[in-house]
Amino acid sequence: MDLHTFFNPASIAVIGVSDNTKKVGYLVAKNCIDQGFAGELYFINPKLQNLLGKRVLASVKDIGKPVDLAVLAVPADVALSLLDELHAQGVTNILIFAAQFKEAGGEGAKREKMLLDKAHEYGMTVQGPNCIGFVNTTGKINVTFLKHVSPSGGIGFISQSGALGSLMVDYLVGHKNFGFSYFISLGNKSIMDESDLLEFLADDPATKVIAMYLEDVKNGERFKKVLAATTRKKPVVILKSGTTSEGSKAAVSHTGSMVGDDRVYSCVFEQCGAIRAEQFFEFMTMLKIYSFGRAPLSGDIMILSNAGGVGVLLTDQLVKEKLRLVTITEEVKKDIIVHMGGEKISFHNPIDLLGDASAFHYKGAIESTLKEKNIGAVIILLTPQANTEIEETAQVIASAQREFNKPIYPVFMGEKSVGESHVLFEQEQIPSFFTYDFLPRALAKMVAHREYMVRTDVPPDADVMSVDGEVSAVMQSALGKKPYLNLTESLAVFKASGVAVTPSVIVSSLDELRQAVAKIGFPVVLKIVSDTITHKTEVKGVITNVKDDDELTRSYKYLTGITGGSQVLVQQQMSGYELIAGTKRDSNFGTIAIVGIGGIYAELIHEVVEFVYPFSETTFLEKLKTTKLNAFVKGFRGGKPLNTHALYESVQALCRLMVAYPAISGIDVNPFMVATDAPVAVDGRVILT
Amino acid sequence: MDLHTFFNPASIAVIGVSDNTKKVGYLVAKNCIDQGFAGELYFINPKLQNLLGKRVLASVKDIGKPVDLAVLAVPADVALSLLDELHAQGVTNILIFAAQFKEAGGEGAKREKMLLDKAHEYGMTVQGPNCIGFVNTTGKINVTFLKHVSPSGGIGFISQSGALGSLMVDYLVGHKNFGFSYFISLGNKSIMDESDLLEFLADDPATKVIAMYLEDVKNGERFKKVLAATTRKKPVVILKSGTTSEGSKAAVSHTGSMVGDDRVYSCVFEQCGAIRAEQFFEFMTMLKIYSFGRAPLSGDIMILSNAGGVGVLLTDQLVKEKLRLVTITEEVKKDIIVHMGGEKISFHNPIDLLGDASAFHYKGAIESTLKEKNIGAVIILLTPQANTEIEETAQVIASAQREFNKPIYPVFMGEKSVGESHVLFEQEQIPSFFTYDFLPRALAKMVAHREYMVRTDVPPDADVMSVDGEVSAVMQSALGKKPYLNLTESLAVFKASGVAVTPSVIVSSLDELRQAVAKIGFPVVLKIVSDTITHKTEVKGVITNVKDDDELTRSYKYLTGITGGSQVLVQQQMSGYELIAGTKRDSNFGTIAIVGIGGIYAELIHEVVEFVYPFSETTFLEKLKTTKLNAFVKGFRGGKPLNTHALYESVQALCRLMVAYPAISGIDVNPFMVATDAPVAVDGRVILT
Repeated sequence: MDLHTFFNPASIAVIGVSDNTKKVGYLVAKNCIDQGFAGELYFINPKLQNLLGKRVLASVKDIGKPVDLAVLAVPADVALSLLDELHAQGVTNILIFAAQFKEAGGEGAKREKMLLDKAHEYGMTVQGPNCIGFVNTTGKINVTFLKHVSPSGGIGFISQSGALGSLMVDYLVGHKNFGFSYFISLGNKSIMDESDLLEFLADDPATKVIAMYLEDVKNGERFKKVLAATTRKKPVVILKSGTTSEGSKAAVSHTGSMVGDDRVYSCVFEQCGAIRAEQFFEFMTMLKIYSFGRAPLSGDIMILSNAGGVGVLLTDQLVKEKLRLVTITEEVKKDIIVHMGGEKISFHNPIDLLGDASAFHYKGAIESTLKEKNIGAVIILLTPQANTEIEETAQVIASAQREFNKPIYPVFMGEKSVGESHVLFEQEQIPSFFTYDFLPRALAKMVAHREYMVRTDVPPDADVMSVDGEVSAVMQSALGKKPYLNLTESLAVFKASGVAVTPSVIVSSLDELRQAVAKIGFPVVLKIVSDTITHKTEVKGVITNVKDDDELTRSYKYLTGITGGSQVLVQQQMSGYELIAGTKRDSNFGTIAIVGIGGIYAELIHEVVEFVYPFSETTFLEKLKTTKLNAFVKGFRGGKPLNTHALYESVQALCRLMVAYPAISGIDVNPFMVATDAPVAVDGRVILT
Repeated sequence: MDLHTFFNPASIAVIGVSDNTKKVGYLVAKNCIDQGFAGELYFINPKLQNLLGKRVLASVKDIGKPVDLAVLAVPADVALSLLDELHAQGVTNILIFAAQFKEAGGEGAKREKMLLDKAHEYGMTVQGPNCIGFVNTTGKINVTFLKHVSPSGGIGFISQSGALGSLMVDYLVGHKNFGFSYFISLGNKSIMDESDLLEFLADDPATKVIAMYLEDVKNGERFKKVLAATTRKKPVVILKSGTTSEGSKAAVSHTGSMVGDDRVYSCVFEQCGAIRAEQFFEFMTMLKIYSFGRAPLSGDIMILSNAGGVGVLLTDQLVKEKLRLVTITEEVKKDIIVHMGGEKISFHNPIDLLGDASAFHYKGAIESTLKEKNIGAVIILLTPQANTEIEETAQVIASAQREFNKPIYPVFMGEKSVGESHVLFEQEQIPSFFTYDFLPRALAKMVAHREYMVRTDVPPDADVMSVDGEVSAVMQSALGKKPYLNLTESLAVFKASGVAVTPSVIVSSLDELRQAVAKIGFPVVLKIVSDTITHKTEVKGVITNVKDDDELTRSYKYLTGITGGSQVLVQQQMSGYELIAGTKRDSNFGTIAIVGIGGIYAELIHEVVEFVYPFSETTFLEKLKTTKLNAFVKGFRGGKPLNTHALYESVQALCRLMVAYPAISGIDVNPFMVATDAPVAVDGRVILT
């Protein structure tokens, strides 16, 4: 979808302008003028003659030629009925504000279906419906009913909520440089969706960072590809709602859109290199830093402060987020002393310049510490104390930032005294803040993003398994007949798919059991065989570490006593780290794999990491390392390091199985015993649709 | 310590006033006048005649009578030398600003020792040194060198950092009602410490909430008692730095004060009913709500919003903090429809009033939903959209809050358009906010505090164990000779202290082993006996589930092969939940107990909860429930519910052992097998000083 003309039209017709200052038709017309659009602008309303000093035309026909963009400020039914006329006039780019479409359900949904059909028939590009339009500050185009003229800056904001757009404008309107390249409202995404807009903004030179507010994603498979390609070009920061079940409920009622499993969204964002914000001001913090081009160069932070206590509070938060405080070298210490008579100064990082620090003290400390090579970013804390030279210190920082290439984040705290300094910082495109609260998490996420960007691995193509005969046979016999494959069937399918399984046999008598054990060798594990009991351990249907014939006999009698049958399953006793692995099918994003800590406390610990298939081995390893599984990766309590390559290959095999058989809705392997060799599936289940 | 006269003096002498507007001696003099102090005020400086329109006296003697408070705006040595003269004049209340005392080390520490000696000799009450003074807004007293006159309000703020005080004043100075009753700077706490100030503010009627910024606590045992008594009278919110090791390092260099184990601090605060804030604005959020007297009545929250997306983002955060969204009853739904023609409204909570919500819509929705009985608090979100009636909606909320007793928190987001509404809210003492980011966590902590306040249990008195003969014998033989008791000794001590232990015997030959097992009964556990190997499992020195004589023989040979000796330890094989328990001695707060999930992954999971001894059984149970141990409390995977009473008694027994023997620095019990009976110590160690 080429959106260049849509968002950079040379001519715009606003249909349904109004002289009622509270109506959308008035607000849009006014915004077009106030933002300073220099192209051809037409106002249409058969009942009006003039508006805001411009002649109003009766219909689109009166323009006498096609316009690049038609903005429909009319009710839903009218909008729908106008499409024929617009088509007749050669108009293909349509912006529809009206609600009462899909989000309203019933008649509205029918209306949206009709809109879609017409748009496809006529080859129209539609923004909305149920949206608030867009702003292009470079082109001085504002076809929204936002309250204020939009401030210009480097943020390309794609929003699935009009209110978030209004809110952002209200925050930004008094600011300098901190503003939009584009603001684009998604609405119901009938035609134009978030992936189209990502593609568009990825190549827009004025957009330094793409910001998104999302409630859902329209086409998961496409979104994954577009997002991954976009983040290679510029950072993408996403605020997404519906992270909890209660949240999801509200999201459904809000836009009529289904919200997928939220952890899957997080996983998709992360694997595609986007950054997810959780809080509103964390979001704004990242947007300010990225749009000013001041991302941290690494997680090594230097702090200067005129308030020791606040420096420590900030340090606590930074360390919680796994950022590091730069160690100050002897050389730099000497330099600080030369520059500012340092006997009063604390040389620990955070450097406490003490409450009476002057602008001159700050200058000396900044210039000295910036010589430290290993700095990723500098945070300069200032609290307004009795003799604090606020404006002068701001000037000192601005001039240091012009000279040095390491990003500086001034945190000038307070309300009454520090306002002017923040204006100066914005003029200089230095991201400054009134509090340190959001900075640690924002920086941690930006540093993780930088590390992601350095990686050159690309996910392998999604791979369809060449169907193995045994898999095929088991699946054929089960499909449509049972809700899941039993243990023997599941293990057979795993094995045929390339996953190692523990040697195991089902026997129907004690004699058969003895013969099997003769081949497997003691010690063994015995399990009940039952198609009805799903949690074997809860009925004490598993006996481990059976070591001799006596125990074998007793155990056989005990287990067959539970089921009332004659069968038991016997397996070799395995050792290693007890993990769980599995897959699930997400309706939007396809196959999702998980790996976690297993054992009887698995569900209690819930230490699990997700992957969206396909994923590279590097991604797999890096994500494992961010969890407690990292203890196994390194070797835990005298155990050998985990064979992560073999684990990756096994999880890939499970994913390929999912891709090959759409009838499989999920796979559980628990326990998955992993040591230095390939991981071995000891128990598990294939769940069918 | 009676501080009433200190903080409400009828007469004040400021010694060392200055006409240099940058000096402390000038700033304090000016603040005294500007804040409007109506008592007797004396300025002292032999080199000055007049200052700020007041006559300056040459010395304290010239006053001719004792003053209630002497404020020393002079260097450290001068301050020290003035004490004799002040004593001679009958002055007992002294405020010292000067630094270069304990915090500077060396000479400074000696100076502080001299100060302490003099103060004790003369019976003086000293605030500081190295502090910035205090403000009492009711008494119009401001003996600080803060930059602005302090705003008055319900916050009693005790600060171990002058900068935090300056910062708070800078935030609050433009606000109405949101301000201090008292601001008191702690400084080096030579005489007056945080416990004294807690006691003072606990009974001050103007103080609605006590806020503290702390880096350490001077006397842990006293602090625990005073804090617990204070929180029964009014809420105490604490911001404490030094939560990480890097943080601690900086705290040491900052004020020369040692920072204890930070988790212990959190535990003390919680058990004593105080609330710990982690972020600066979370702190401010709680102070605003408490000082306006609008704490949430329960965790059941109602949300009204004109921005569905923002409502969902807020909901996500609330649910993460385990708060609940009120379900709207049919009755109230009908009421909403009657009030405002509700067909467009979403009846899910959060209630989405849609972007064009007018003040009238808000009014209808507020009045209807406030009829819902089960509401703990109402959050009203407003984003400034095209036709949003901001001031009118603020008026609607103010009038609703006057009528209803449920607290309302308006979150009017934005910057440009919403400022005036927040002024109105402060006039009405309604806690309003510019963003929702800090509200969920702040409310969750306040709700937890309310639940704590409802509890009537009091911790039992710390109990000294009557020393059992066996404990005594074991301890006598070990003290000064070894760093810890071995397993047999430890189990013996546990047993004699009242903790159940697994039957276990040390044997020196296979024959002895067979005799022991004949008494204990199969299955058994065998362990190596060694005073040098500390981690038995890491050398594979433990064999569990030994079931017969064959295995016994093999295991004996294997284990003695590891140690080279003839001894092994044999125990009955136990079953139950595998927990860990233990104690440690904190230098400031005394005996700390811990309980956590055990097993081989214990250190990986690190699910542990701490208790400061003494603690009630209710406290014990409530804290267990906030962790993953709650799964055991309820019964996990078909297991029986945990006998929490027996576990409590056992942990108490370990604590009493610590109290009885100061030479014990810590106790580990791992595993502690717990089921329906009393928990059984299977392995463990008593660590000596």
